[in-house]
Amino acid sequence: MRQVSIGLDYGTNSVRGLAVDAATGEELAQAVFAYPSGEAGVILDAAEPHLARQNPQDYLDGAEAVLREIGAKIDLSQVIGLGVDTTGSSPMPVTADGRALASDPSFFGSPAAQCWLWKDHTSHAEAAEITAKAQGLPYLAKCGGVYSSEWFWSKLLRFIRTAPEAAEAAASWVEICDWIPAQLCGVTDARQIVRGRCAAGHKAMFEEAWGGLPSEEFLAQLDPRLADFRARLFDEVRESDQEAGRISAEWAAKTGLPEGIPVAVGALDAHFGAVASGASPGVLVKIMGTSTCDVMVHPLDAELPDVPGMCGVVRGSVLPGFYGLEAGQSAVGDIFNWVVRFTGRSHEELTADALRLGPGESGLLGLDWHNGNRTILVDPRLTGLLMGLTLHTTPAAAYRAAIEATAFGALRIIERMEEHGVCVERVAACGGIAEKSPLVMQIYADVLNRPVEIAESAQTCALGSAIFGAVVGGAHPDALAAQRAMTQPSSRRYEPSADAAKVYQKLYGLYRELHDSFGLGGQSAAMKKLLQIQESARG
Amino acid sequence: MRQVSIGLDYGTNSVRGLAVDAATGEELAQAVFAYPSGEAGVILDAAEPHLARQNPQDYLDGAEAVLREIGAKIDLSQVIGLGVDTTGSSPMPVTADGRALASDPSFFGSPAAQCWLWKDHTSHAEAAEITAKAQGLPYLAKCGGVYSSEWFWSKLLRFIRTAPEAAEAAASWVEICDWIPAQLCGVTDARQIVRGRCAAGHKAMFEEAWGGLPSEEFLAQLDPRLADFRARLFDEVRESDQEAGRISAEWAAKTGLPEGIPVAVGALDAHFGAVASGASPGVLVKIMGTSTCDVMVHPLDAELPDVPGMCGVVRGSVLPGFYGLEAGQSAVGDIFNWVVRFTGRSHEELTADALRLGPGESGLLGLDWHNGNRTILVDPRLTGLLMGLTLHTTPAAAYRAAIEATAFGALRIIERMEEHGVCVERVAACGGIAEKSPLVMQIYADVLNRPVEIAESAQTCALGSAIFGAVVGGAHPDALAAQRAMTQPSSRRYEPSADAAKVYQKLYGLYRELHDSFGLGGQSAAMKKLLQIQESARG
Repeated sequence: MRQVSIGLDYGTNSVRGLAVDAATGEELAQAVFAYPSGEAGVILDAAEPHLARQNPQDYLDGAEAVLREIGAKIDLSQVIGLGVDTTGSSPMPVTADGRALASDPSFFGSPAAQCWLWKDHTSHAEAAEITAKAQGLPYLAKCGGVYSSEWFWSKLLRFIRTAPEAAEAAASWVEICDWIPAQLCGVTDARQIVRGRCAAGHKAMFEEAWGGLPSEEFLAQLDPRLADFRARLFDEVRESDQEAGRISAEWAAKTGLPEGIPVAVGALDAHFGAVASGASPGVLVKIMGTSTCDVMVHPLDAELPDVPGMCGVVRGSVLPGFYGLEAGQSAVGDIFNWVVRFTGRSHEELTADALRLGPGESGLLGLDWHNGNRTILVDPRLTGLLMGLTLHTTPAAAYRAAIEATAFGALRIIERMEEHGVCVERVAACGGIAEKSPLVMQIYADVLNRPVEIAESAQTCALGSAIFGAVVGGAHPDALAAQRAMTQPSSRRYEPSADAAKVYQKLYGLYRELHDSFGLGGQSAAMKKLLQIQESARG
Repeated sequence: MRQVSIGLDYGTNSVRGLAVDAATGEELAQAVFAYPSGEAGVILDAAEPHLARQNPQDYLDGAEAVLREIGAKIDLSQVIGLGVDTTGSSPMPVTADGRALASDPSFFGSPAAQCWLWKDHTSHAEAAEITAKAQGLPYLAKCGGVYSSEWFWSKLLRFIRTAPEAAEAAASWVEICDWIPAQLCGVTDARQIVRGRCAAGHKAMFEEAWGGLPSEEFLAQLDPRLADFRARLFDEVRESDQEAGRISAEWAAKTGLPEGIPVAVGALDAHFGAVASGASPGVLVKIMGTSTCDVMVHPLDAELPDVPGMCGVVRGSVLPGFYGLEAGQSAVGDIFNWVVRFTGRSHEELTADALRLGPGESGLLGLDWHNGNRTILVDPRLTGLLMGLTLHTTPAAAYRAAIEATAFGALRIIERMEEHGVCVERVAACGGIAEKSPLVMQIYADVLNRPVEIAESAQTCALGSAIFGAVVGGAHPDALAAQRAMTQPSSRRYEPSADAAKVYQKLYGLYRELHDSFGLGGQSAAMKKLLQIQESARG
């Protein structure tokens, strides 16, 4: 009899469920549920552009909807395991019985009680404070030396400071990749929620070498209330080839899944996507969507230097037996979407016109920091820049320049890795942009001056979840075997053009000048001062 | 009996005729003729964005049309004199009998034989060569030390080099402010065309102190053919209170003007506009349209230092008895029009939204160099820049930032003047933008932190022409008396807001950093290299 594994992939705007053959990875059925809250699932605040929250109830409604829809297409009694991946760091406060604090009537409609989505940058001051106070301590060594406003502790510190009542009422603070599996498994005690190594290691500075989470003494320097909160968190983590729990009777009844089948420990979407895209030593996997996440693995027994500016280097975060390395760009597709809104043209029109321009012909050069810079500068208080404007500059030229700028940012990340001895032999890409935009992917191949392989599955994150569902379901002896059996080699790749690469090499030299000047050097103060002026003008 | 004077004002897209009472300046009738050739009167070349030419026949058709239309409204027998102002430096080749070379059948359709419009920047390499070869010579002392690609000699040198057959056939090279009066007066010998001091002094390095035009030796260093051409040019100039000639029988018959009435020596539009806007010592007149021209006068008997980067300091170019000082910004309204095209929004929509933003609220800062920088950097190979972009940046924010950037450029010019002892006591503005955009004018008042007076006449350039028409027609003893009698004090002014000025002072500090870095310092090479990459990409 066929064995089925299901992956649930929680993105920024929707959740996707994917049912696959647990032996071969063959896709059997899928379903998508768009979050109903906010704008395309994201709760915004016109007065605070850094704010981005989500309604946790959307996650539960989404799980039920996609599982029921899949159940209408295939026989759910064949399901042997589930995996869950989500955006991150996207933490939220929970009640003592493990429910979302946002579902507590006292906190209905309170943005602080909702999920603090990965791209929420309200805690940039807290991030800077953590970075400053961590100097001389080991905590930041594995995440590039700079703590991000997108991460667990920055958000928790801001939560405690700006919403003291909610913080008082919160029994814990949980990444949604941990919370959702716990809900599916009927966990009714916040202390019983299994925490995954992936989010804990990459976002919460968790590492056994220094005793798990950062010390109470360190946290007390930031805020005594943060130190007090530490006891409500966790002191152990699991990797995703282990169980987070088993499907509860309630969820079995709601969805038709067999009661008691295992759910793998949850992880960040990009990490599971990388597994399904063929992550192995020497392969850089780029998960390209509204933002881009770069993932690599490195053997645990090989020497691995600290790479300044990398978002994270965590044992076992991608595949057990390997270091997981994460880097990324905080806006990629989001910038292209912004050009669409700003110019009033469609992606289709801009793409058609941009294809008529060769490398260098736009006369434009941009900095891709419209949502800050995650790697390698780790600075949310950077902004985008466009140089070379003339009275003849067209929207398509700006669209192409935006794509090129993100590709230059991608090259800077690869260079930084190689400068520190992490060799990038192959580049694989997955995600919506890799699937949909030959223009973008050709520019990336030309700028990186390397072939770019497109992952064979169009749903790598969900497939990655299903791979770990199959592992905990017993279909394979371990994650590496499951990866080998359930993924296919790439049959599509973009080859670099030597002529284009030559032009881009020159443009990249100029990009480096701007990057270093505005990111690190003489002009970086001007960019920050401009933000300060804006903030004080807005009162 | 009433005496009437007519001013003909040749702009970039159309010619305007204005008939006024020669005693009081009261406006009696006007007419506008849009040039039929090219795009809104400008002949472009998609393969060469620097090219901007005009068809000289449009000027003659325009004179006839507007004079006939005015003749339908008022009695032309009362006209005692005419004045003509035009864009510039806008030179063109002519035949031995003074006609446009473009009208010669051998050169039909040849862009080289047409008028090289002020904003034609094809000769930027020639301009750089002239600047380089003039080092150590006196010629550039009065025009800021840098020769411009917009000017007479750069264009003539390129004409000779790139269109040798047309250059061979050309009997001379004439600014249209000189050519049009000659045509109205029936001049049939190119050597008899009267040259005005205004264009010759500001654009052709003409100055009696060094023997008129630059020496043959100097020109020979640039190109022996240029030295040969010098003999086909001129060795004396007149000011605009003198006659260029008298209306010919042919033009009297065509238009109904009295035969034999005098036509004043022509001048550049901004200079006549400045006269009608009340130019006098201490007053900076800004003529604001697609570009902006800044004009001041300074007593001949007062000490006047050389001001680096000023476009020109010429005795008698604006008002006899004064130095005329010219500066300017090569794109102002042109940048706002570009934002309209680029974002697909209307001026009305962008203005309404931009009015909702306070100073600093856009979070953006721009460099206004979309058409190069005329004053104070005198560098056509600079480009626009926009900093501070985020995923939330709106078209209206960019529109406002474009306006602010041009205002910062304007402030930089005033500062440069004052750094060298030319005190700006009052700022007066005229031209289309001064008339039409309270948003722009308020931002200028706030950025300059000075009241900005709007010239009383809505047609200052044409009124300035009519003032000089009245002078040569004998209605007033001299130009100063005519200016006093025929212009009214301003009744509209924009007052600076102290709060806004404070924010703009901070933003201007950042603008200065970008301006100096990209215009002169560490980043200026990057901007130039980007243009080189574009040019070689386009082949």
